[in-house]
This record gives sequence, structure tokens and C-alpha cells, in this order.
Amino acid sequence: MKKIPVILLGAGGVGRALLQQIIDGRPNVADRNNLEFQLVAVADSRRWLYTANGIDDATIAAIIDRKKRREPLGEERPDVAGMVDQAIADGHANGILVDVTAQSDMEPALNHALANGWSVALANKKPFAGAWETAEPFFGNAAVRHESTVGGGQPVIATLRYLLDTNDAPTRIQGQLSGTLGYLCQRMDDGVDFSKAVAEAKAKGFTEPDPREDLGGMDVMRKVLILARMSGWQLEASDIEVESLFSKSLSHLSVPEFMAASRSLDPSMRDRVQAAHEEGMVLRYVADVSADGGKVGLQAIPNTSSLANLKFISFTTTHYHDEPLMLVGKGAGVGMTAAGVIGDMIGLARELF
Amino acid sequence: MKKIPVILLGAGGVGRALLQQIIDGRPNVADRNNLEFQLVAVADSRRWLYTANGIDDATIAAIIDRKKRREPLGEERPDVAGMVDQAIADGHANGILVDVTAQSDMEPALNHALANGWSVALANKKPFAGAWETAEPFFGNAAVRHESTVGGGQPVIATLRYLLDTNDAPTRIQGQLSGTLGYLCQRMDDGVDFSKAVAEAKAKGFTEPDPREDLGGMDVMRKVLILARMSGWQLEASDIEVESLFSKSLSHLSVPEFMAASRSLDPSMRDRVQAAHEEGMVLRYVADVSADGGKVGLQAIPNTSSLANLKFISFTTTHYHDEPLMLVGKGAGVGMTAAGVIGDMIGLARELF
Repeated sequence: MKKIPVILLGAGGVGRALLQQIIDGRPNVADRNNLEFQLVAVADSRRWLYTANGIDDATIAAIIDRKKRREPLGEERPDVAGMVDQAIADGHANGILVDVTAQSDMEPALNHALANGWSVALANKKPFAGAWETAEPFFGNAAVRHESTVGGGQPVIATLRYLLDTNDAPTRIQGQLSGTLGYLCQRMDDGVDFSKAVAEAKAKGFTEPDPREDLGGMDVMRKVLILARMSGWQLEASDIEVESLFSKSLSHLSVPEFMAASRSLDPSMRDRVQAAHEEGMVLRYVADVSADGGKVGLQAIPNTSSLANLKFISFTTTHYHDEPLMLVGKGAGVGMTAAGVIGDMIGLARELF
Repeated sequence: MKKIPVILLGAGGVGRALLQQIIDGRPNVADRNNLEFQLVAVADSRRWLYTANGIDDATIAAIIDRKKRREPLGEERPDVAGMVDQAIADGHANGILVDVTAQSDMEPALNHALANGWSVALANKKPFAGAWETAEPFFGNAAVRHESTVGGGQPVIATLRYLLDTNDAPTRIQGQLSGTLGYLCQRMDDGVDFSKAVAEAKAKGFTEPDPREDLGGMDVMRKVLILARMSGWQLEASDIEVESLFSKSLSHLSVPEFMAASRSLDPSMRDRVQAAHEEGMVLRYVADVSADGGKVGLQAIPNTSSLANLKFISFTTTHYHDEPLMLVGKGAGVGMTAAGVIGDMIGLARELF
């Protein structure tokens, strides 16, 4: 049985789900892959709990529980590179650094881990979606996995890897990548005003605490940018036009102020939805990218389209040139995101340990 | 650069496409995976060409070309176990035995290869779809890959492997798995008679030379049986009810006789199609299997279903319990089947060599 040391960065919703799945998945992982994940450290943004020979399952369970009560996690932590150095000093010559945060500026720490023989698995999109110069080292590196950066648990990255492995070349990537924005569009089809649909989605927990993080489209942009770069298109974020669903003048309001002010967006949105309907179309928030760039934003698509009401990603490729290969499914929630990370950890362990 | 010895069984359409992709894919495989496939043998059912230190690319190109002219391949061949023994005797302690035939009774040779440290990659469904007792060794074995047994190039097996890796458990598997039968159903929706639709599909090369191989449903059954067994359901073929689209009395006719006699099936099929239409439904050849078994056959589904005219496979699982995860796309042709085999070979090389 191979023991794979793991350092986990992020003890929020996804981090806790991941810890639970490490415990629950032990028999399956042992049975299918003859390996075991040995959690040596869990860190939040300020503190960490570190046990060189592996944190025991009872303590992991307590960490999962602790978070709910906002107790401090452990001791003040070193920087991330220091965590890896500590593990190496304690005999873990290789292991997996798992980043399920949404932090910027992780690149140097990730590079440090990789340069020292560790692998990395990330749900954090940012290192892949920054400037190409800093992102490049993380693409095409067998020690880097990031399934959960796109599709929230759907095997979107795995599918693209498969296409690339089989010498197939994507020519166009399209999709409805945001369940939240899909929900809003469908509610507007039902005649609900934009601001009301946003309030509903927020109340149901479909949006981030600040709905502008969804409405601005940057998250969708990051997802297609990652897929584009995997496909060999060395795009920058600026190559992808992003339509924000709120005007810049509403950027600096507090969340409650924004929720109230969003009513000002209703009339123009209602006009667009109606104009689409009159032509037998519906408005959907769609991503569409190819080698030269692309855009993410509202687009009118036929209301008869079988894809109008599905969350999907489609790959047009050399092989799939007339009908694209599509992956359809909801892919959402911390559990599925954590599952994608576990899949990455298993993949790394199989290939590199 | 790792060199991976390969023995290829099958020099027909898929085999030749695979040889072409081995040549064309060398730079990509070297670049992405730092490995090279070294083809030591190619065999058809009676002869083989064997070169212990690797068949050169010019000779591979000649094999691809030769097949068109029906020249003999090489010398009389040993049995498959003997081929593997020969390669081992010549210093290839491990390698990949690739089976793209449609032969029965391959199990002992596959077991021999596995027992002697070789891996296997198959497009041949039969070893996985025989009695559970003989098929069992090929499931859950990391040295066995068979992406192209289901979906003809779509990453269906890869998706299911991903779900199983992430400790997700399928509860139901559904799909339209036959592009050929999908085509027939849609033509019948257009008012075309069954026998005429079959003749059309045959003329377009959508069917096997004997269309009964598609119409009988056994190929669809084998595909879902493979997925079911991967999911941990130890079903036998007899647990899956199969609806044949032709009556048993037509089994023993020659192909031309069958094509003529198939007109006798038109009236009852026309009635079924019309009955479905009257209820706002369309007939589709659907597979539907869960832990206790299932069936493959014609089923009326709403004509408004977004999936009516798509070839798809859907996995309902613990995570995807309300909306299944679906893979949609045509997945057809020898090129895509060969690409799936190459993907398997790369996966094996990454993990086991």
C-alpha cells in the first residue's frame, strides 16, 4: 500500500468536503488503487495543523466539525513554501500539495513545491488564469492536476486531456458553464425580472454571497481561458471579451445596495429577453472561444435547441468536426468539487508515486 | 524517452487506422508523455510480421497500404500467447498487447499476457461481455484498458472510471448507444418504412455488412453490460433483455434475402411509430440498466426530449442523483475507435511503465 503525503490548503466548504471524502473514500481508494492518502497538514489562511506522520482520522473529523464553530485551526503557519519544506525535512520527499482556496499569488509556492518533487492538485482557478507568463508552467506538466477548476466536478478537464492525448485538436470550445447564470436566464424566460431572479438565486444559495461575482462573468471567462490554454491557445484574459450583467456604476455599492439598485437593470434586460422571444430565441450566457480568442456573454439561441436548458461544455475538434463532443450535467456544490480534487489526487498517485 | 513494445492483433480498418495514428502521433506522444510506442508485431488471423527491435515506419506504412491489396502480411503466426512469449524471449519483459479484433475466445491469451507482466488494450468487446466467470479478471485490473469497447471513441469508459475513482456510485445507466439504430428511428419518424431505412443505412455504410448485426441489439447489450460490470453489478448477458428489430425466422437468410424479406416487418413497425407519434412521443432504441439488470430495445420517449435526436450515454449516480451526467457526441468510425485505443495505450504507459 503506497502512502501519499498530502498538504491541504483551504479548510472552508470544499476543504471540509475533501477531508470527509478522504476519510469516507479510504476503502475504495485502497481497493481500487492500493494507496492511501496520509494527511500531514491542513491550513487556512493564517494557521495550520501539522503532524509529520499523518493526522489521525479522529482529528480530521474534529477539523471538519471545528470549522463550523470557528475555533482556531492550530498554530500560526509558515508560508506555503515553508509548509512543503517542513514536510520534506520530515522525510516526505514527495507528496501532493492540494489548493482548494481562491487565493491569488499562489504561483511561487506552487513552483517551489514542483521544483522540490511534489505534485499539486488545485480547485483554485487563479494560478491557471493569470498572465500566460506565470500560468505557463502549470500547463502540460504531469505533476499538476486541476479537474475542479472547470465544471465543478464534471470531468471536463479529463475529457479534454483525453482528446489531447489521442492527438485530437480542439478548434472551438463552447458552453453554458454557469449553473447560476443559466438559472437566471430561465427565470427571465418565465417573465421574472432580472433583479428578482438575482434575489431568488441569492436566497437559494445559487450565487456567491456577492452575486456580482457571478454576474460579472469573470468566473466563466477563467474557465474557458483554462480550457483554451490546455488546447494550446496561448491566450490572455484580455483576448476574451466578457459581458458583465451589471453596469460598472454598480461595482462599488455594498451587497444590499446592489440588490436594490439592480432594479435599474430590469427594463433593458426585459427588452432583450422579449426581442429574443419574438424571434423564437432565448437569451443564454454562453462561452465561445477558439484559437484567436472569444467571448463570454448573453447570446440569443433558438428556443428549440436541445441545449437551451442544459449546463454543458462542447468541444469541436479535428475528430468531432461536424458534431461536437459534449459533456452535460449539473456539476455543482462543494461535494462534487471535492470529488474532482480526489480524482486528481488519485491520478497523480497512480502516475507519479 | 520510454520505449513501449506493442503487439497489435488485427490489421483491418481499426488496426490500420491505429498504425497510422501511431506514426502520426509520435511527436505528440513524445512531447506530452516522453514515450514512444515500438511496434514489434502486427498480426491478422493467420499471419504476423514480427521484428524484435521494432518494425520501422516505412514497413508500417507498407502494412497500411498492403491491406488494401490483400497481400499476405508476413509469416504464419504462433498463437497469441506464443507471440507474447516470443517478445518476452527477445527482451521485452513488459509491453502492451493490443486487440482490435472482434474475436471470441481471446481470454486465455489475454490472461497469459497479463500473468507475464504485459498490459492489454482492447477495442474487442467480447472478452468483457462473456460469462462473468471468464470476464471478471479483466475488470478492476489496472493493466487492462478498453475505452473503445463502448462509445466508439467517446470517452465513456474514462468518464465512468472517473466517477468510480471519486467514490461515486452509478445507480442507473441509460443511453442511445447505436448511431445506426438512431438513424433508423429518425428516418421512420420521417415516414420512411423500416426496410427502406435499413437499406438506406446499409448503402451509406452505417450498418455492418450484415445489418442484422446492428438490428439484433446484441452489440448495444454488450456495451451496457460492460458499463454495468465496471459499476460493480455482476450481471450476465441473460440479465439484460434484448429486443431484436427482426424476427427470428429471418435469421438464417442470406443478406440479400434478408433485405428483401425485411419488408414483412414494415407494417407492424409503422403501427408502432404512429402510435408513439399520436401520443407526442418518438420511438428510440434505448438501453437502460441498473444493478438488477435491464433492457435494450425500442421505447417511446417524448418528442420534446432534448435527447431524442442525440447519441448519448447518461450516468445517474450518488452525486448526479437528480440530473444525470451525460456524454453526448457521435463517436463513430475506425479513426475514433483507434484514437480511443491510443488513449488507452498512453494511459497504460503512464501508469505502468
